Amino acid sequence: MSKGQTDRLSEQQQKSGGPKGIFGENAQIHEVSVTEATDEVFDKLKKAHPLLKFRHRTKIPKKEINDELNKIDSRLGKTLYVKNAKIKPDGGIIEVEDDKGKWRIILVVEAKHQGKDVENIQAGKKVGKNNDQDLMVAGNAIERVHKNINEIRNIMIKENHFPYVVFLQGSNFSTKTLDVLAPDGRCVKIKHDSGEMNRIDRVTAANYSMSINQNHCENIFIKKNGSYMMLQATSIYARCEPWKEEEMIEIMMQVAETSLSILSKQLSEN
Amino acid sequence: MSKGQTDRLSEQQQKSGGPKGIFGENAQIHEVSVTEATDEVFDKLKKAHPLLKFRHRTKIPKKEINDELNKIDSRLGKTLYVKNAKIKPDGGIIEVEDDKGKWRIILVVEAKHQGKDVENIQAGKKVGKNNDQDLMVAGNAIERVHKNINEIRNIMIKENHFPYVVFLQGSNFSTKTLDVLAPDGRCVKIKHDSGEMNRIDRVTAANYSMSINQNHCENIFIKKNGSYMMLQATSIYARCEPWKEEEMIEIMMQVAETSLSILSKQLSEN
Repeated sequence: MSKGQTDRLSEQQQKSGGPKGIFGENAQIHEVSVTEATDEVFDKLKKAHPLLKFRHRTKIPKKEINDELNKIDSRLGKTLYVKNAKIKPDGGIIEVEDDKGKWRIILVVEAKHQGKDVENIQAGKKVGKNNDQDLMVAGNAIERVHKNINEIRNIMIKENHFPYVVFLQGSNFSTKTLDVLAPDGRCVKIKHDSGEMNRIDRVTAANYSMSINQNHCENIFIKKNGSYMMLQATSIYARCEPWKEEEMIEIMMQVAETSLSILSKQLSEN
Repeated sequence: MSKGQTDRLSEQQQKSGGPKGIFGENAQIHEVSVTEATDEVFDKLKKAHPLLKFRHRTKIPKKEINDELNKIDSRLGKTLYVKNAKIKPDGGIIEVEDDKGKWRIILVVEAKHQGKDVENIQAGKKVGKNNDQDLMVAGNAIERVHKNINEIRNIMIKENHFPYVVFLQGSNFSTKTLDVLAPDGRCVKIKHDSGEMNRIDRVTAANYSMSINQNHCENIFIKKNGSYMMLQATSIYARCEPWKEEEMIEIMMQVAETSLSILSKQLSEN
């Protein structure tokens, strides 16, 4: 390990609170399920808005999405093969009841992990066919994330907000290059701009390659042939280290509050 | 096997041309790669429109998609981690040059196979953990299809057509229940409306659950708050048996010609 690498690693570890700080089992970071974080957000919303009625669902029947589409245009929402098909985002769906008794979606949350290279290197575990590589070539499973995004885009097609939050975590989602210390003293580099490692680009079609780690709940309208086109952008939060419960809650609260503010503006205009 | 089942199976096999007709290695159907079919479509288009200039690409750099988005609004198209990231639809992309020298996409093709239950049953091959099941519970890999669809939706955001064709094939995409004869004389049912078998519903978010096996190249505009909202719907072609080359070519030609007709209408209006 070069002097420069050692310094950089040391600095990185100090910033993140010690030698095991990047993460790993002993880290002071407790990764909790996004379901629990969403439960907490649901409680916080009820406390913050005692006059509003909220509900938290774990799934939406595909039939409900189809019915919503079909109301807009009779050509839409007609096809369903498995009658009880459902959409199940990891953190579920939070809704608020409007003044006409209709439930409006204000938060949908997914959490996806991909890439265990930091853990493997720190544990001295080699990977690959012959167990002789430090790094595992990244897979493409994350591309499945677009399916539920498109389903929720469809059910929210009449709304002016899109409160879809995806937390991406793992070495395949690192936004900076990391130096990780192996038990044998070597420093292994995890490059954030390598095609064999990074998979953030496989998700950004869902936010029109806008900035990541930002709340995009309020829809963007672009001009098109004298009319407007509405863009529904996913709020993508990506990094290598696990998201802490309080961080997830803060982000989700921001997005849910953005939804409420857009809805209340609409309701007061009507 | 009941009398009714035998009759139905016999009828089905007669319709599809004999005992091996549903499909299988001996069937008279030759499944060709969608790449070859697209090459053929490229040649046919050149012959049909000798005054137009076409090109056939196998991939689009993600940077090109981002640049297109960024031209529309400076907030869009900013994020790219892997500089040479590319989108590679199975059948590639066919474009036509417009009167300003700009290449316009007129066809994008993907072909996805999932579910080998017919082949397994016909071969007498049992599946599952203990090799004792006739049917394999369907996987979810097909959900990845939405990623490239969303990428092409983005690069075509200014267009009024969306010439994206997906050919789905396999027991997970059957549009009707099938009775398949096993070598031991049993008739095994493959249900098209079972949640353990059918995966068409995992794709239909990409066409707003409109009808499948139909050309949806021409975009739909729906009213929204006094303005219009454009829907880009994928043309999803799904069935259990393999698509024949001539069938794929016919469908692709229809979609490409729809693109040309929409583009030429636009160009003559300008």
